[in-house]
Formats: sequence, C-alpha cells, structure tokens
Amino acid sequence: MHEPFTVAVLGAGNGAHAMAGHLALKGFTVRLYNKFEEEIVQLRDHGGVTVEGVVEGFGRLELVTTDIASVLDGAYAIMVVLPAFVHRFIAEVCAPHLQDGQVVVLNPGRTGGALEFAKVLREREVTAQVRVAEAQTLIYACRITGPAQVRINSIKRQVPVAAFPATDTGAVLAVARQLFPEFVPAANVLETGFNNIGAIFHPSTTLFNASRIEAGEEFEFYSSITPMVAGFLEAVDGERVATAKAYGVGVDSASDWLSKTYEGIRGDNLYERLQSCAAYQGIKGPKSLKVRYVFEDVPTGLVPIASFAQAAGIPTPASRGIVDIACVMYGRDFWTEGRSMENLGLAGMKVEQVLDYVNRGR
Amino acid sequence: MHEPFTVAVLGAGNGAHAMAGHLALKGFTVRLYNKFEEEIVQLRDHGGVTVEGVVEGFGRLELVTTDIASVLDGAYAIMVVLPAFVHRFIAEVCAPHLQDGQVVVLNPGRTGGALEFAKVLREREVTAQVRVAEAQTLIYACRITGPAQVRINSIKRQVPVAAFPATDTGAVLAVARQLFPEFVPAANVLETGFNNIGAIFHPSTTLFNASRIEAGEEFEFYSSITPMVAGFLEAVDGERVATAKAYGVGVDSASDWLSKTYEGIRGDNLYERLQSCAAYQGIKGPKSLKVRYVFEDVPTGLVPIASFAQAAGIPTPASRGIVDIACVMYGRDFWTEGRSMENLGLAGMKVEQVLDYVNRGR
Repeated sequence: MHEPFTVAVLGAGNGAHAMAGHLALKGFTVRLYNKFEEEIVQLRDHGGVTVEGVVEGFGRLELVTTDIASVLDGAYAIMVVLPAFVHRFIAEVCAPHLQDGQVVVLNPGRTGGALEFAKVLREREVTAQVRVAEAQTLIYACRITGPAQVRINSIKRQVPVAAFPATDTGAVLAVARQLFPEFVPAANVLETGFNNIGAIFHPSTTLFNASRIEAGEEFEFYSSITPMVAGFLEAVDGERVATAKAYGVGVDSASDWLSKTYEGIRGDNLYERLQSCAAYQGIKGPKSLKVRYVFEDVPTGLVPIASFAQAAGIPTPASRGIVDIACVMYGRDFWTEGRSMENLGLAGMKVEQVLDYVNRGR
Repeated sequence: MHEPFTVAVLGAGNGAHAMAGHLALKGFTVRLYNKFEEEIVQLRDHGGVTVEGVVEGFGRLELVTTDIASVLDGAYAIMVVLPAFVHRFIAEVCAPHLQDGQVVVLNPGRTGGALEFAKVLREREVTAQVRVAEAQTLIYACRITGPAQVRINSIKRQVPVAAFPATDTGAVLAVARQLFPEFVPAANVLETGFNNIGAIFHPSTTLFNASRIEAGEEFEFYSSITPMVAGFLEAVDGERVATAKAYGVGVDSASDWLSKTYEGIRGDNLYERLQSCAAYQGIKGPKSLKVRYVFEDVPTGLVPIASFAQAAGIPTPASRGIVDIACVMYGRDFWTEGRSMENLGLAGMKVEQVLDYVNRGR
C-alpha cells in the first residue's frame, strides 16, 4: 500500500534540490535520499529547500537521509535525479526495499537507463511489482544558489517519458503525471534514449579542448566548437540518427533540435546554429578533465549508441574513436563498464528482437 | 655515367635550403628541383642560397628548376628533402628519369619511406639500378630566414641511415657518407622507421588542442602536453615501442629519447621530462588544423605503425583512435591513403616475412 502523496527523491544535486522543493510546494510529502551525508546536511538542517525563480517558496521535506529503506517505504513514486552513471548503483541500493505498485522514473535516463535499472532488479530477483521508466531530459533548468536553496530558471513544457517495457508507459504516466502534467508518453525507451544530445555535444568537445581544460584555462564551451570540431560532432550525430532510424525511432538531428529548442537559431549547419544560440553564450568550459561530460556521456551515451548501432550493422567510427580515446586517456574500459547491449540485457539481439523486448519486455 | 660531385636536392623548404646551400659550400655541384615554381624563384634569382649559423657562406646552385629530368641527369646522389606525404608523388616524378648507380636518400623517411619509394619504382617497372635509402631524421635544425637565405642552428652528430633492402645499406653509405660523414648505418628500414618520435608528439597533441588551433589562439605546443595528455602520448608511444620490439628493433621510448637527445631533462615520466625540456620552450602551436602534424604524421607515422602492429598481433587502440578521429575530422581515409602494409608492398606478410623482405628484399 502506498500513501498517494509520498514521493521519494533520490539525489542531492541541482535537479534533486529543484524537484524535491517543487514537489513539496505542490503539496506532496517528499522524502530525500542521498548516498553522501555531507551533501544533505544543509537540507536536513533547514528542514527543506528554498526555491526561487519560476517557482518560489520553501518546500518542506519530511525526511532527508542516507537510509534508503525509510525513504522508499510507502513512497508513491521514486524520482531518481542522479547522474546516469550511478543508475546501476542506485538500482542495487533500491532493489531490496522496493514495494508492489511503486513507479521509478529516471530524470533523465540518458541512453538505456530504464533498461539498465530493470536488468539490475531482474538480477537481484526483485519480486515486488515495480514499474521502471525514464524521462528524456530533466524537466528543469536550475542551479543550486546557496545552502538548501535552488533557482529554477525554467520548466520544460513537455518531457517525453517511456517505461520499460512500453506496455507499462500508460500505468507509469497515470502516476507520474500527477506529479508533472508536463510528462507525455514516448513510444518506448529507444525514443527517449536515442534523443541524447549531450552525448553529441559533450565528450568530443571536451577531448578537442583537453589540453586547456586540464590546464584550467578559461574558455567558452560552445564557442570552442569551431567549424571542423562542429563537423566532427555532426558525424557523431549522424551515427546516432542513423542508429535511431534503424530501430524505427525518428529523432531530430542535433542541428534541428537546436532550431526547435531555442529561439533565434540561424544558419544551415551545426557550426552556424551553435554560434547563433544565445542560450549557450557564456557557458564556461570545465576546468578539469574529471567531468560528467566524459564520465556520464561516454558510458551512458556514446557506448550504448555505438553498441546498438553495431547490432544494426551501422558503422560508428566517430563515436567509437571518441570512446577509444577516452578509454586510453582515463585508463578505464568504458566499453565494458558502460551500457553495452550486453550490460543492458540485450546481448546478441538483432533489431527485431530489441524492438520486441523494449516494447513488450520479451 | 655519373659525375661524382653532382647532387640533386629535391624540395624547397627549410631542410632543402639548408642542404643545398651546405653541400654547395662543401664543394659539390648542386642542382635543386621543386614542383612549385613560386617556391624557387628567389633561389634562382639569387643563384644560390645564403647560409648562416653553424655553417656560413653563399652556396651557389648550378640549376634551380621545376624540370626533374635536368636535375637528375648525371646526379650522383638524390637527396629528397620533402614532407613524407609527398614521397610517393616524388617517386613517380623521378621514376622515368632514374639512372644506373644513383642513390636516393629520403631526409627523413618517417615510417616506411624507402619501402614506399621502392614500391613505386617497382610498379613503374623502373629498370635502372637505383638504391633507395632513408635517414632516421633530418640532419639539420634549421629555418629559412629570408629570400634564398637559411639559418642552420645545428647539425646532428649522428644520423642513422638504412637502405631497402638492408643489403644495400653499405653501398648507399659509401656514396652518402661522402656528402655527410654523420650518416651511420642502421640495421634496416624498420629501425629508422620505428624511430618516429614526431608521430608520437604531433597528431595527438594537435587533436587535444583542436578547438583553439582552429580558432587561431596562441599557445605553446609542448607546454600544452598536460599530465593526462602526456599519459595518452605514452600509451601511443608504448604501442610504437612494442611494435618495434615485435620486429626485433630496439627503440627508445619517447621519454628516454628526450633524456638522451636534450640536456637538462628531469623527471620520471613523459610529462615531467617534456616540461623540463628547454629546447621545446617557446615553440608555438599551429594556428590552423591544416598542418603537417596531422597530414604527415598520421599517414606516414601512426598508420604504418598501427598496420605493422596488426600484422604482429599487437593492439594499438590509442594510435588507431587518433587515426579514426582524424579520418572523420578531415574527411579523409588516412587508413587507405597512408602507409598501410599493403601500400608499402607488404600485404599479408607476417613478422618473419617482413624481416626477410626489409633485410634481403624478398
């Protein structure tokens, strides 16, 4: 049994601050879990989070803790607001405590989030009847502005959500739309997963600026996407779009996505469109190579895209080149640790089998 | 018949200016060929080249022309002083005009230069008895300082040279050491070829600085080799060293090469040693991505190294990653146009066959 207004928010970053505060202000009973005590001390001391921006007020949190069991017990929906590279870990943390009827939503899933989460539950032999879904993107543009304080700059008008399997999407949305009416159904988790624009913009641009990033020099991230770098990104993006198409998913190119998402975009190619994007102006590049632009977007973006592509017979030299370079540079095997078809529970499947699996769960 | 003191210098860059002027000052009759008229107008107008630095004087040139036939006719030695990516072209230009007894030396050959040159002569069914060799490096550190004027900052004390096949090395050196007593024999063209340090330092560093290079921003090339970039270079270098070893060639690591080549090198790893290298301080990065650091060092460095490695069963993910990225970024297939085993005349050969071939020509 679930108390209908209790929501678990997992995470303590910008998005988790915003979602916990916002849902509390909407009247839900909100509990927050995070692995690291030091990241939630302020939230507990303040008893909640002060929200400013397009939403304003103090969102009281019922519980702020590193104890997952007490957060999940009786929760209505479980909103995971964490980097995608910890989805596997968080699934393992949740597994023993999940209860019948709970809905898990990854905000967002990146590529393959719900598949990976569900695979962990299967491996852990979880018997609770739980539905797992992923949002295509985080609903907020937001930033922590102080202790227990967050600014929500905007709330997206529509955020596609898909469950794994897709036959569960309706049931998930029946719950999740009570939290966010902005959630709309996507065809399946391939549609939410292949719409991973961060995987296009972030890792390649980071590597083509690697020297000055490690040196801590200041530069503007999107301005650094010069014509040949933009051409490279378009090649990576073409691999993503071709792969999505092979699985029957229509996705916009990064270039078209920019034009649809932002006002005032001009130009015929990605380089021109990026340079005309006012929203990107002034965004600084990172000052360390130890960044989510690699640690998240390689294993939960380029790796699954290249892996799905391989199963569909689509060559991905650009995506693979970036992953290979990152493996050497970081001394990690992103191919093995990332979301390969195998790690998503799709080992050896062909396109039709993958579609059956994501749509019907078998 | 060859007049014993006539030397052909092919090229019109820094090295060709230095070598033509220096050999003229040594008393040889020097003729200079270059494909592009505009690059030799000044040399012809001046009637030679003014040399300054460790050698000083005016070296008179007998002939400066775009007509290869008149330069090669009766030449004693043919010194090719051109980027390695034009070795194939220059072999084709020379092929119809070569004469019995001539010696060709590539200054330097990079990886596979003599093999590629010889393959062209074979394909063109050249019957003249010509010996083809390669130097491991350019004998000079030099720079054009004005019209028909060059500064030679230093002359290397020893430059290894190998002929293809190695049984010709003695005969080549009998001629070439009359020009440069600094030339010493190398075991074979694998030894000269695998000692390609430029292939380690140049392409990867260029790509990890690609954004600011294309933006035309000023930076110091070797200072930009930050710890993780240096770690990546060490991985590329480890692949080169392992490949050389598989073919029985002992080469220094780039890190050890630095310590042996320059004074005052300190530190245990490539990063520390590069930062301690006074000779590299102040060397500016390129201001365009259209540079020899890619156009030469990828197809005549990383491509042959990775190709030889593959035939020896040695994995080269770092080298291959850089080549793959460069192929996408430049819209060129460096694997096909570069010095693969196939393009060097070694298609399908195993290690032992390669050794027989480079040592004995069959």
